[in-house]
Amino acid sequence: MPVGSLQLPPLAQIRGIRLAAVAAGIRYQGRDDLVVMELAAGSRAAAVFTRNAFCAAPVVVAREHLQQDMPRYLLINSGNANAGTGASGLADARACCQALAQLSGCDARQVLPFSTGVIGQKLPVERLQAALPAALSALSDSAWAAVAEAIKTTDTVAKGVSRQLQVDGRPVTVTGIAKGAGMIRPDMATMLAYLGTDADVEAESLRSCLQAAVERSFNRITVDGDTSTNDACVLVATGAAGGAALSPAHPDYPAFCEVIAQVCERLAELIVRDAEGATKFVTVEVSGGADARECLQVAYTVAQSPLVKTALFASDPNWGRILAAVGRAGLRDLDVSKVDIFLDQVCIVRQGGVAPDYREADGQRVMNQAEILIDIRLGRGGARERVWTSDLSHEYVRINAEYRS
Amino acid sequence: MPVGSLQLPPLAQIRGIRLAAVAAGIRYQGRDDLVVMELAAGSRAAAVFTRNAFCAAPVVVAREHLQQDMPRYLLINSGNANAGTGASGLADARACCQALAQLSGCDARQVLPFSTGVIGQKLPVERLQAALPAALSALSDSAWAAVAEAIKTTDTVAKGVSRQLQVDGRPVTVTGIAKGAGMIRPDMATMLAYLGTDADVEAESLRSCLQAAVERSFNRITVDGDTSTNDACVLVATGAAGGAALSPAHPDYPAFCEVIAQVCERLAELIVRDAEGATKFVTVEVSGGADARECLQVAYTVAQSPLVKTALFASDPNWGRILAAVGRAGLRDLDVSKVDIFLDQVCIVRQGGVAPDYREADGQRVMNQAEILIDIRLGRGGARERVWTSDLSHEYVRINAEYRS
Repeated sequence: MPVGSLQLPPLAQIRGIRLAAVAAGIRYQGRDDLVVMELAAGSRAAAVFTRNAFCAAPVVVAREHLQQDMPRYLLINSGNANAGTGASGLADARACCQALAQLSGCDARQVLPFSTGVIGQKLPVERLQAALPAALSALSDSAWAAVAEAIKTTDTVAKGVSRQLQVDGRPVTVTGIAKGAGMIRPDMATMLAYLGTDADVEAESLRSCLQAAVERSFNRITVDGDTSTNDACVLVATGAAGGAALSPAHPDYPAFCEVIAQVCERLAELIVRDAEGATKFVTVEVSGGADARECLQVAYTVAQSPLVKTALFASDPNWGRILAAVGRAGLRDLDVSKVDIFLDQVCIVRQGGVAPDYREADGQRVMNQAEILIDIRLGRGGARERVWTSDLSHEYVRINAEYRS
Repeated sequence: MPVGSLQLPPLAQIRGIRLAAVAAGIRYQGRDDLVVMELAAGSRAAAVFTRNAFCAAPVVVAREHLQQDMPRYLLINSGNANAGTGASGLADARACCQALAQLSGCDARQVLPFSTGVIGQKLPVERLQAALPAALSALSDSAWAAVAEAIKTTDTVAKGVSRQLQVDGRPVTVTGIAKGAGMIRPDMATMLAYLGTDADVEAESLRSCLQAAVERSFNRITVDGDTSTNDACVLVATGAAGGAALSPAHPDYPAFCEVIAQVCERLAELIVRDAEGATKFVTVEVSGGADARECLQVAYTVAQSPLVKTALFASDPNWGRILAAVGRAGLRDLDVSKVDIFLDQVCIVRQGGVAPDYREADGQRVMNQAEILIDIRLGRGGARERVWTSDLSHEYVRINAEYRS
């Protein structure tokens, strides 16, 4: 059960992008699991990928292809991650790109492959290839919602959002979709997320725009601390809206970057709200740090503490566990007598000890909520960071104990 | 349910140490929760404490007292950690030391206080003090097992072990007890553990002996990655066995240190076997690292991965999660094509991909066991480290969601 009402809003089409989702029977039965996205000629793309050393075969191939050419197609499957599959996994990813290139008349290097699902099983290349003709003939402007459904694994809801802004006085649209429910702790990268815009954006600017957006969105969430082998986030700008190409010199570039970042933030938030087994949506805010790094260090230690997460699941205002997590975060020379901790507006720890006016009933009231702010003030500087996370429930254990069975 | 048969063996008495456990009603009803250990005059003690910045009041006071004098008494309570209690918690810990000092005729600085249990609640000083006379009159040589029972919190079994060796041709005995089942990831320190010996050991040598023993035992285990606020390990040498004081110059000193380390290792192992909700006892061994630090980095990342731990609980040979955890451990320039991973003797990953001869039935056979070795070979050096951990079960979530209720 996701936290909050997460109904997929209407997703705006992006001029220059056509998509289709079909059922290839890769792992799931009776649902779509294969996606083709076609990008108009002249589109530019930027992407960030997982930093996991065991990155999956499609990540290796997509990174390589993107260095050689701009993509015309994204090929995405769910149900099988094609990770930990060694040389044969790489050959499988290349074979899928090759098949799509042949059918569509482009070069294989113009296809970026993506996979998500179980690690360590051979990709059923033949079933995937067999479904490609149907996908190509189904391409349409309006399949964003179907694609958001098709890339799900343990997600309970499809995730997407659209925004509009004006560039050069013309309307520009951004639509983003994402999946991700477990193995979530992006490290300088993301889960699977795809953003399209009809803006025209200069290639290097597109990359820096995406980097900045990812840094403040997908790189600020954690479900279980486990960075995936397959994380990828792609931003495509088709340029179909016309106007001058966006770059830092353009007066509308900051506003464009802000919208991209907001779309990424919303997708990141949706991922945490639909985290495996989540019953709470938790914001960990750390201020008063000497620098951003130590704020993040504290925020992630609290957000990933199994004891804090089980207390959140139990709606137990067991603030001692929050305090213990702050204390073990490894900050040098932390003066605990300067640390204050709030649950929402309720001060639970003041100057390192329980707040004199704290009453358990106040903490309980906040913990009973589905959305909780853990607000930690270190009192040693001006830096501030924020991380989103979920709780650790029986359902998380059940899902991950049964995922392969 | 602990993993393996963990019946408390007979614990040998230590000449020069008398102990008692009584019921003070600190939190639990109908069981002992207060311990007094009396050390003969001339005993030497060494201790290591938690590095959690929010260390508990008794840790602050014990560290302070130990710098000023050698202890004559250890005063230990379970059920209340006296942590996160600020200035009044410090005053409470001092008041308890003062009360015991007065009753026994020693100086308050010769009393070391220890607390374990719920964080953030006021220590019931009066109930604790009221139980001291009964504890003092109950002191005996033979209460080690009763004391091991009394210091338990969520532990399901009492933990202890005795060993003997010869020093200067005379028999010397070592007895150790410990508690700890959750909030376990000692960081250059330990849970609550107490070791006594009748050997005569020079003070500085006692400290270095304990440091080395802790480093290879308590500092190599993790249950949930949460370093406690109250960890402490004390080694007392009464000298009652006679003979020259042990120091590095003594030919029997290495053998003595080895026995101390073995006792610590056994206690550390018992703690993991009785970890909260544990159904598996898991050894993560990492070899072929460039140095010990990176071996530990990989070992802890695997041992603390919620996805690895739930797969262990499910007896699911989902080796992709192990591989993903190795990949995100943050090793610089890790060449995954040199990484091999074994479950016991079964090679699951060879040269970074699934081993060609791996069959799921073989992995399943190992995963069905209650004791599992995850053997990771990095192929980039000669360093080797080993960490013990447990799985993540429904019972862990239940215990920690209900602990305070």
